Amino acid sequence: MKRVGTQTITFDNPPTILETSSIVGPKESQGPLAKYFDQCLDDEFWGEKTWEKAESKIIKENVNSVIAKSGIASTDIDFCFAGDLLNQCISSSFGLREINIPFFGIFGACSTFVESMCLASVFIESGGASNALCATSSHFCSAEKQFRFPLELGNQRPPSSQWTVTGSGAVILTFSGTGPYITCITPGKIVDMGIKDANNMGAAMAPAALDTLITHFRDTGRKPSYYDAIITGDLGYIGKEILTELAETKGYNIKNNYEDCGVLIFDKENQDTHSGGSGCACIGTVFSGYYFKQLKEKKLNKILLIATGALMNSTSSQQGESIPGIAHAIAIEN
Amino acid sequence: MKRVGTQTITFDNPPTILETSSIVGPKESQGPLAKYFDQCLDDEFWGEKTWEKAESKIIKENVNSVIAKSGIASTDIDFCFAGDLLNQCISSSFGLREINIPFFGIFGACSTFVESMCLASVFIESGGASNALCATSSHFCSAEKQFRFPLELGNQRPPSSQWTVTGSGAVILTFSGTGPYITCITPGKIVDMGIKDANNMGAAMAPAALDTLITHFRDTGRKPSYYDAIITGDLGYIGKEILTELAETKGYNIKNNYEDCGVLIFDKENQDTHSGGSGCACIGTVFSGYYFKQLKEKKLNKILLIATGALMNSTSSQQGESIPGIAHAIAIEN
Repeated sequence: MKRVGTQTITFDNPPTILETSSIVGPKESQGPLAKYFDQCLDDEFWGEKTWEKAESKIIKENVNSVIAKSGIASTDIDFCFAGDLLNQCISSSFGLREINIPFFGIFGACSTFVESMCLASVFIESGGASNALCATSSHFCSAEKQFRFPLELGNQRPPSSQWTVTGSGAVILTFSGTGPYITCITPGKIVDMGIKDANNMGAAMAPAALDTLITHFRDTGRKPSYYDAIITGDLGYIGKEILTELAETKGYNIKNNYEDCGVLIFDKENQDTHSGGSGCACIGTVFSGYYFKQLKEKKLNKILLIATGALMNSTSSQQGESIPGIAHAIAIEN
Repeated sequence: MKRVGTQTITFDNPPTILETSSIVGPKESQGPLAKYFDQCLDDEFWGEKTWEKAESKIIKENVNSVIAKSGIASTDIDFCFAGDLLNQCISSSFGLREINIPFFGIFGACSTFVESMCLASVFIESGGASNALCATSSHFCSAEKQFRFPLELGNQRPPSSQWTVTGSGAVILTFSGTGPYITCITPGKIVDMGIKDANNMGAAMAPAALDTLITHFRDTGRKPSYYDAIITGDLGYIGKEILTELAETKGYNIKNNYEDCGVLIFDKENQDTHSGGSGCACIGTVFSGYYFKQLKEKKLNKILLIATGALMNSTSSQQGESIPGIAHAIAIEN
């Protein structure tokens, strides 16, 4: 591998994304991408007694699914990189406590999915791993309870709020394969522009996305038009518009090929999801379900996947803190 | 690098631990290792209004300290790997939001410090980074409030409980140096033996430590006597005894060269810390303050550092769950 520019790593033998799997909850199952997901649940509890246990079950079953689909024995998966939004990442650690694979817990809020692929790519390209598993999850009910209000209160949601995706995305990366390949990674810095509204995550995270996006272009010498699609994780309608405008002020026109998973996963008009989807599973399920298939079918051949995260919690907001954002990017190419 | 056995990676060009720094709180400043720490605070708040903000300040100032001591410009540090115990790791993300270094947030509970060094080592040895920063923190007051009871309640603590270390440990790893070197890593699996007592973390984490310890010996062909010291992070008095006994039943005698940072950092008789210290900063400060100096002065030349983590939160305990443990190991040699 080679370091390029200030914060990009390019791979000489790029890891292949061998297989993906996605499970989504009931609301996502009624959205425009439903047909692309491996499993659509009709119950937020999935037979469990609590939302937290349901979320653990979702990531567990999704990891079992991606391993089964990949045809690789779980004993041949060298490392697992996983994390989620729950306090102390309990969805991942409880959901994956039985998989018996060396485990790196990570926390990047909603950037976790791409963060895990950044780390796994470096392990694979360097020979530290032959196969690696990346997984994440989120759950609307457990997230609302933890970050905002108990659902039972029935609080109104402001128009700038986003809807945490219930689901899990998981991928298996391998050292030898026929693609799609992770050709380079641009891990991001923490960016805090002083936004304090926990109901406007898109605005809080857009500056971090801009920073990573521009750094990626500068480091690689690529332009937006190099990619068939530039895809952010969960900026939603508001954050997407902010990023598009900010990029233009910096001389990068992304209007023609920029999509956001939070915009894609729900039907804004009919699903009452305000500014769109969010959560670790937003980019996790939309990439694992939709974009991976587009790449395999060569409908897309070069994409830049940027996951953004808001690195706050309810205590920090109560203590008057602003919301630091982060964004990690990976280029995936056939 | 080479994969050895089932879950160990050995390095052909092992990264050097260039520099360390440690800051500790008032109680640790009265303990037996006080003279080894870079800075001893006399106030848990350190001039901040909340414990969370104090913890962020501690990791921030400690990172500034290790960068200053290393002589490396922060612009030459390619990646930062950091995490902590607070919900959504806000100590790290708020404390480090201004350092302007690409950031990987990680969560391994009290195993975070060694997890960060595992990841950074792979980045450095593979050429993905020339220099990397690893940092962690914990704070007695913020941890008690979050995991157990508000301190204002004055709850009694059972004899098996441990005392979360207030402080931060930080290291800078570099690709070219004269050691001490990280020669190999053995990342651990999640191990859950069904322990449910959140006031007996040592018992919950000892089986994970055993799993990683034995795997490390099997993978490398080394015996306990290969090391001048085998050091766990925060098993405390109870967990240390359990690990020693469990290792013996598996044919490994670690009685002569095994220490635990949670046992070392406090004076059990005079500091009322029951089963010893715990928290991310326990191994973080004891390694950064004490063991790194022992290595530099060649008083120790080969150590195995094993950090253990309990991957639970207060919600999981309230929902009747057991406590999954994890342990990551790195060998450090002159």
